[in-house]
Formats: sequence, structure tokens, C-alpha cells
Amino acid sequence: MATSEPRASGGDQDPNSANLRPPTTRFLQKNNSLDEKGRLAGQKNLLSCDNSDRDARFRLTETDFSNLFARDLLPAKNGEEPTIQFLLEIVEILTNYVKKTFDRSTKVLDFHHPHQLLEGMEGFNLELSDQPESLEQILVDCRDTLKYGVRTGHPRFFNQLSTGLDIIGLAGEWLTSTANTNMFTYEIAPVFVLMEQLTLRKMREMIGWPDGEGDGIFSPGGAISNMYSVMIARYKYFPEVKTKGMSAAPRLVLFTSEHSHYSIKKAGAALGFGSENVILLSTDERGRVIPADLEAKIIDAKQKGYVPLFVNATAGSTVYGAFDPINEIADICEKYNLWLHVDGAWGGGLLMSRKHRHKLNGVERANSVTWNPHKMMGVPLQCSAILVREKGILAGCNSMCAGYLFQPDKQYDVTYDTGDKAIQCGRHVDIFKFWLMWKAKGTIGFEQHIDKCLDLSQYLYNKIKNREGYQMVFDGVPQHTNVCFWYIPPGLRGMPEGDERREKLHRVAPKIKAMMMESGTTMVGYQPQGTKVNFFRMVISNPAATQSDIDFLIDEIERLGQDL
Amino acid sequence: MATSEPRASGGDQDPNSANLRPPTTRFLQKNNSLDEKGRLAGQKNLLSCDNSDRDARFRLTETDFSNLFARDLLPAKNGEEPTIQFLLEIVEILTNYVKKTFDRSTKVLDFHHPHQLLEGMEGFNLELSDQPESLEQILVDCRDTLKYGVRTGHPRFFNQLSTGLDIIGLAGEWLTSTANTNMFTYEIAPVFVLMEQLTLRKMREMIGWPDGEGDGIFSPGGAISNMYSVMIARYKYFPEVKTKGMSAAPRLVLFTSEHSHYSIKKAGAALGFGSENVILLSTDERGRVIPADLEAKIIDAKQKGYVPLFVNATAGSTVYGAFDPINEIADICEKYNLWLHVDGAWGGGLLMSRKHRHKLNGVERANSVTWNPHKMMGVPLQCSAILVREKGILAGCNSMCAGYLFQPDKQYDVTYDTGDKAIQCGRHVDIFKFWLMWKAKGTIGFEQHIDKCLDLSQYLYNKIKNREGYQMVFDGVPQHTNVCFWYIPPGLRGMPEGDERREKLHRVAPKIKAMMMESGTTMVGYQPQGTKVNFFRMVISNPAATQSDIDFLIDEIERLGQDL
Repeated sequence: MATSEPRASGGDQDPNSANLRPPTTRFLQKNNSLDEKGRLAGQKNLLSCDNSDRDARFRLTETDFSNLFARDLLPAKNGEEPTIQFLLEIVEILTNYVKKTFDRSTKVLDFHHPHQLLEGMEGFNLELSDQPESLEQILVDCRDTLKYGVRTGHPRFFNQLSTGLDIIGLAGEWLTSTANTNMFTYEIAPVFVLMEQLTLRKMREMIGWPDGEGDGIFSPGGAISNMYSVMIARYKYFPEVKTKGMSAAPRLVLFTSEHSHYSIKKAGAALGFGSENVILLSTDERGRVIPADLEAKIIDAKQKGYVPLFVNATAGSTVYGAFDPINEIADICEKYNLWLHVDGAWGGGLLMSRKHRHKLNGVERANSVTWNPHKMMGVPLQCSAILVREKGILAGCNSMCAGYLFQPDKQYDVTYDTGDKAIQCGRHVDIFKFWLMWKAKGTIGFEQHIDKCLDLSQYLYNKIKNREGYQMVFDGVPQHTNVCFWYIPPGLRGMPEGDERREKLHRVAPKIKAMMMESGTTMVGYQPQGTKVNFFRMVISNPAATQSDIDFLIDEIERLGQDL
Repeated sequence: MATSEPRASGGDQDPNSANLRPPTTRFLQKNNSLDEKGRLAGQKNLLSCDNSDRDARFRLTETDFSNLFARDLLPAKNGEEPTIQFLLEIVEILTNYVKKTFDRSTKVLDFHHPHQLLEGMEGFNLELSDQPESLEQILVDCRDTLKYGVRTGHPRFFNQLSTGLDIIGLAGEWLTSTANTNMFTYEIAPVFVLMEQLTLRKMREMIGWPDGEGDGIFSPGGAISNMYSVMIARYKYFPEVKTKGMSAAPRLVLFTSEHSHYSIKKAGAALGFGSENVILLSTDERGRVIPADLEAKIIDAKQKGYVPLFVNATAGSTVYGAFDPINEIADICEKYNLWLHVDGAWGGGLLMSRKHRHKLNGVERANSVTWNPHKMMGVPLQCSAILVREKGILAGCNSMCAGYLFQPDKQYDVTYDTGDKAIQCGRHVDIFKFWLMWKAKGTIGFEQHIDKCLDLSQYLYNKIKNREGYQMVFDGVPQHTNVCFWYIPPGLRGMPEGDERREKLHRVAPKIKAMMMESGTTMVGYQPQGTKVNFFRMVISNPAATQSDIDFLIDEIERLGQDL
């Protein structure tokens, strides 16, 4: 229901409502007039002062938002002032959040169960209604949304492969959403389309393809990028499947490691191969594909009359951070004429590091590569690229030549209209934040970030490898920032190996994790793997993390786990 | 190359560099301390003052960004002050852009060819390098990015189905990118996951499914949403395809109109059906499917031994804005036991309007519906939902049960972990901006927006239907906001029908469009359709557009086209 009285977000003592009426202040008093010259020869200038600011000075005024509504903002008449005031209030909320994100005296999260949030935490009502809410209430809703969320940029948030809050990336996202355009044509995204093209070329250069030649596109995530790779491989070897369907091809099989990301199997299911035709490869103790097993399974598949098509080598597996031996796999792919894809969603970032890029040796032999800057490189989600060695094959695979969008008779070079290579139509601008971060950090900035994260994971490994109460899931220095370990509470340390110990140990990580979340101090992931019971998987991609945060995590695990 | 001298974006007169050193001002001087109470019983409070601001007062200081770099921002030591100052500079750039977006005295775009932008417009260098750039240069890069882009929110931008710059949606996107989390688990996106759940339910209620029951997910766009619908239909009738592949099913065929969006055909190609097995249905003069043609083609397919699986009915076609007769199509789908999908990517928004929702009569009989709030409802891109009547089928179709992400032994109700229903793994938060807009406008706000856009398109239709020099592509009042017409320049008006006139007329719209883009005054789309030569397709989804903007467009077409 509409109301001009905002529901308080924290009871009577809640300071949020008080925040809504700031004293009068002045903001950014400067002349910002942009006299833009007409640049195109022969351009008819209809506009008296195009692109110029009449008055770019801000004043933050004491605005009463309780009687203002969305309909009072631009494009409403006289909407400029409330619009700017409203956006500045939002910015205040967000910059406070940014500061707190990096403040170790704040919690990573303030956990509540779904039913608690659904019941409405202290007036935070998630239900939608027919009538509008005042802008004052909208500001309170924004504060509450952040309050009950998770600070993924907090120095002690280690829960996912994507962590951290990069300020340049954040600025890039704010600009992207303000520009609010679509990647499908040069016509409406000229700058972004070119940035994507140049950035993809740079990424292909780092992979090692001659002159950075090839193809590629940014997609909405690693799973979709991996799906692209399977589609392109199929198109390369059996182009008639595009028009005639899978019945035009023999029974095709795909190979990927048992440690690889589940998106390869998902792609197999979605694209009509069937998940059973995604053959899982055995790995060594460290989670790396055993090349001999690949070759044996290729031979076996051929003997059964199936047609091997595609091999995925993982560069940085999700749980162990393992790098499959790409060169050895590439030898086998060449021998049997198979498409080689490298899933570097997690490990691709190591290509930016002179110290660590050797872990992807052979990646230049791949036919396609997935690389998610939103993981190891700290770019805000979503930012994932599928890179392809052969030029033109993406368009060949996906184009449908929609006349309403990709007119051949435009006045500019329409090869810059990239939309028809995509399986999407509209496509979000994922490139700008990444381009801006690359500009701001340089390649060396990404390198430093990656080297630092790998150093930190080695610090963690060295700290716990011989520490009482810890057991590593696999031996040796981790290849990526993944450090996998069991914490053995004192009560389990003397217990003999066996089912009872396994069952008890299996419950340790979930219990510690639940307590961590409820105390809000830190977050780290856990999972079982194969026959191994639940263990912690620590990953470091957060630029804010330091050795003291690693120490804190270990202290916290021991504090919470000592009585289990 | 790194440089502490920023490249100017507009020569010596460029005001951008001058903008970088504002006089000292104070911003948002208010006390913002948030004393957050520990709410969970038994919670161990390790943190002295979690979530509180020590000092939330901003001062915009005279910051010299020429010697500051990304590495000086948070999490750097003493990084807080430069971080806030940098973000405030960005906000100044963005709020100026917002103001100019709604200012009719500014241009919609400042067009340049790809080679011009690639050569570096007045110092705007798109190339990436190894060394970092100063924050001063980064701010200039941000200004330049906007300067050479397209103002999709401008009142005279009519080029796409997604137009407009909604201020609440923009605030929502800024918050989303600051929160920078991932939809796959409740664990790291508790509030957003619940918002998605409640919003999807509300959308299902508007479709008319009992109690809003069913399933659904937000996807990265309408093409992916439509792809989901085909996958789910296949899983419903031939679940074994998930594991065994398309060879486990007979030859399946899909039906969609010749006017439907190309994503249905793309999905057919990608998912292994083959684009030839996507059978195109004939339409009437208005672009609506002829039900008898559907039935005839179903019978024909069955006689050939194929198995009809899926029918797509379009609610709001891309070019004509046509609504297929859903009830009649649903009758046929029931008779032959076929999956009925309604692609309401463009027209779904009309469900919010009591006046226009009848155009989707029968939508409640669909098995699945695509509905893109980022089109007719003005939500920033990307925001698309796939809604499904049968509960649980999305998860059945897509789940792979990855242990590292979807642990069954979490402390909360893990049915809220939605990631395994998706074909994605990581998933961008597309819900918040939409939820916030719904809160701020209410259902009635969306209704008013939609009614106004449809009124405007009728105004345009009435204005040109009998006007000299115009010819409508089809007769009658448009069903949606699409108004399709030819402009006939004076020189062609007396010309007899025939190939010469057709060829000349085919070149008119591209020429006018090119001149429009070069003068930067307005943008509208054109395309051919079937045997019809290039015509303008006007669409109105921009809340900033008024009758005077429609008048302007017509004047502009006549001004630019009079001598063709």
C-alpha cells in the first residue's frame, strides 16, 4: 500500500529515517560546460547548444522525499532537481556501503533465514503492491536491501571465486547502467562495441594466437561461454546440424574431467548431445586429467561406434584449482582431430602473470577458450569471454540474419554489428568496466593482483600443512589459490579411520560454516568431492585480503570448531 | 602508456580537464551512524561496532587525480578519501549525463564511423596498455565514453524496443553493482533471491495462473528465455533427451510465425532440433498467425512422420507489434497435446494495463511465457523472465547437482538456492532494479506508462495515416506501439508501382536514417519484411516521449527526405 510514512528499517532507534533530511550543503560547485563542436562535415546543426550543460553545479538541498514519488522525477516537468537530489541520496547510501565493505570492524553478513526475511524484518516489506511508495520509503528499502545482504567485497569474504569490490570496476558499472544500451549493433553502442573488439584481441594475444587474430564475444557467464564452445565445435565438424538437427550427425561424444565444471555436462544436455555422452575423465590425486585416460576413452568410444568431437581441458578447476596438462591433451586432440576447448573461467586470469602463466602452457593450441574476468581478475559480475581461434566461425554457427536488426544497407561498416554471432539478441554491456579497469591498472596491475593472491594462498598452505588439527585434501603446493583442507576438531583427532570418523568429519565443515554465517565474521566454502567427505575450499581472489585475514579465518575455524 | 598528463578529450578548449579540480565543497554533511543490533539469538558478537559508520560525512575536496592511480583507492591504506572523491567525480559525470539525456536541446548521438573512433578521437584512445593510467585520465575516458555514445534515454530515441532512462531503475542498477553478488545461492544473495521469487509469483498472477503458482527465473534476455521454453518443452515430453541426447527422441518439430523473433529459430539450431525443423507459420496482413495454417502444418508434419512438440505464439511481434490469437492457438495445442509458449518479450508488459491486457487473452493457457521488463516496462537492460506453469520442471530439466555449490547440508532451507534451475552458473542480479521500480511506481505506475505509450503510437498513426507522402505498411490501428510506414519523397509520389519505384523506395529509409544519425537529431529503426521493401518501424517505450517528439520525428523525416 502507498503511504507517505516510510516504514522504519530498524525500529524507533533506527537512524535511517533521520538520514533522509540532510542539512543544506553544496556539492561539486564547478562550471562544467562542454562546448561540443559539430565534427561531421556537412552536418546540419539543428540544435543550438547540443551536449552543453546549462548549469552543472549541484546543490544538495534539504529535500523532503516523503511527498515525492517516482512520477516526480525526470522526465517529469521540474523533475531535474528532485532527480539529482534522489540520486545523490542513493550515492550517499552506496558510498557508505563501500566504506563499510572494507572495514574489518563490520560484519560480512547479518544472516537471516528465508522465512524471517519474508515475514518482514523490522518493516522491510518485500511484497509488491498496486500503489506507489514514496521516495523516502524507496531510500529506506535501498538501505535495508544492503543491510540484509552479503558484503562480497569484505576482506574476509572467501566464499566464491568472484569476490572483492573493485572501485574502478564499480565506477564502470555505474556508467554502464547510466548509458543503458545494448551490444547488438554498432549503431547504438559504438564505443562499447569497439572496446569489446579491442579487448578480445588483447585477450587472444595473451592466449598466444598469432597477432591476436580470431573471434570471440562476451557472454553472460562461464557456463554460457562453455556452451558456446560446444556449439562451435559441433558447427565446425558437422555444420549441417545447424539446419538439420542432431539426427544429421552420428552419436557424438564430449570429454571432460570429473573435476571440471558442471556446465560442460549442462551444455551437453541442453544442446542435444545428452549428458551420458559427456564422458568424464579420471584425474590424478591433484585433480588433473590423466592424458592416458583421455586417449583410452577416445579409443573406447570409437570402438563403440561413437564419434569423439570435443575435449575440455580445465585451467583452474572449481574445487582443487587444478590445471589440466594442456599440451599433452592437445597432442591427443591433434592425433584424433578433436576440438580442444580450455575452460579457463577461473584460471584464465593467470595469463596476466609472467610468474604463473606457465600453468596454462599449451593454451595457444586450443580452438576455444573460456576466460572470466569476473573471477580471478576482480571485475564485477558479469564478465565472461568466449575466445575462438578461427575467425568467422561464431557468426557461421549462430547467425540468423534478422532483417530488422542487422540491415546490410546501413551507412557504416556493418561488420561491426556483432549481435548475430551471439545466441542472445539483446546483450548487456559487460565490457566497459573491464576495459576501464585495464586502462586504470594496466596489465601489470592485474599481474600484481594475481601474484599477490597466489602468494596469499601459499601463505595459508604453509601455515596449515603441518598444523595440528588440519589435513590437506591433496599434497603439494596448490596450483591456483584454492586450498582444500579438513579441520579436525580435538574430539576427532584420536579417532581411528573408519565410517564413524568419516561421518563425523563430514558434518564438521557445515557446522562451522553455519556458525560463521550466524556470527557474520567470515565466509568460506565447503563441499564433498568424489569419495571425500566435506572439506573447506579456501579461494582467494579478493584484493582486500591480507595475511591477517588468513590468520583470522584459521582462528575463527578453530574457535568455532573446537567443541565439535 | 602510463602518463600523468591526461590526453585531452577535446583539444585545447576542452573543458574536461578543467573539471578535474573543483573548488572545495562539502557534500552530505549528516550523521549517518547505523547502530545495528545483534538480532540473532545466541549470536557471538565479535565485532565491536559492526555495520556502524564511524564518520559518514562527505567533503568534496580539491583532489589532484593526476598523481593518483587505481592502486591508491580502497583497499589501499588511506584509500578511503580518494575512493570517495573519485566516486563523487564519477557521479558528477553521470548526473550531468542524466540531465542532458532529458534535454531536447542536446543531440541523441554524435555519430562517428568505426575507423574514426579507432583512430582516436581528439585523444580518446581505446587501446589497452601494460602500464596504468592516472585517475585523471580515467575520468576523461569516462566522459569521452559517454560523449561518443548514444543517449538511449533521450526523448527522441525511438530506435529499439528498449528505450528510456528510468531514474529508479538506474538507482537500482547502481545499488546492484555496488552489492556485486550472484543469484545462484541464497547464501550470498538472500534478499535478491527472495525478491526474485516474489516478483516471479506476481508476474505469474498477472498471467493468470492460479495463485501465481509455477516456476520461473530471470535470464540474460528474451532469446535465452525463449531457449529455456524449448528446452523445458522437450524435457516435459522427452525427458530422456537430457541424458541420452536427441537421438532418443523422434524427429521433433517446432512451430512459430514467420513474423516471430529469430530467437526461436536460433534455439532450434542451438538445441539440436535444426533450424529446418522450426516450421514457420503464415500470418494475416497484420502479422498475426493464422490458426488454420498452424493446424494444417501440424497435420502435415505428422503425416511426414515428424512429431510436433512446441508452438510459439508471439504477443507483440518485433516489427509489426502483432499479437497472435492465443486462445485459438491454445485450442489447437490442446487438441494435439503440444507445448504452448507465449513470447511476450515485447508485449508482456501489456498485462499491466487493464485497457490493453485483453490482447493477450488466453495467455493463462500457455505452458510458458517470456516477458522482458527491460522492453515495454522501461527497466534497464538486462531484465527478462521465463515463467513456467508447472512447478519443478525447470530444475528437472537443468539440474546437475554440483556439490560445491548446492550443498544439501546447509543450515537454511536450500530450496531457496535457485542456481541449479538455470543453464547459467553465476547469474547477474537482474531483479533488484525491477523490484525497486515496482515498489516506486506500483502496478498502476506501469499501467500508466504503458497506456501513455500506446496513446502516443495512436497519435502517430492518426497523424500519418492520411497524410500526404505516407503509406502504412498494414491497415488499421496498431495493436502495440509499433507503427510501420513508408515515407514517399515528393519525387516518388507520381511514379507508377513497379520495380523501379520499389528499388527507389527501398533506399529511402536507409538514406533518411543515415542523415538522422549524422545530424544526431533522432533515431528510428527501419527494415524490410518479407516482400516489403524497407520501411520505418516506429516504436514507443520511452517514458520521456511526448506528442511534440512525435511531431518532431515526422518533421525530421520530411526535412531529410524531401529531396530524395
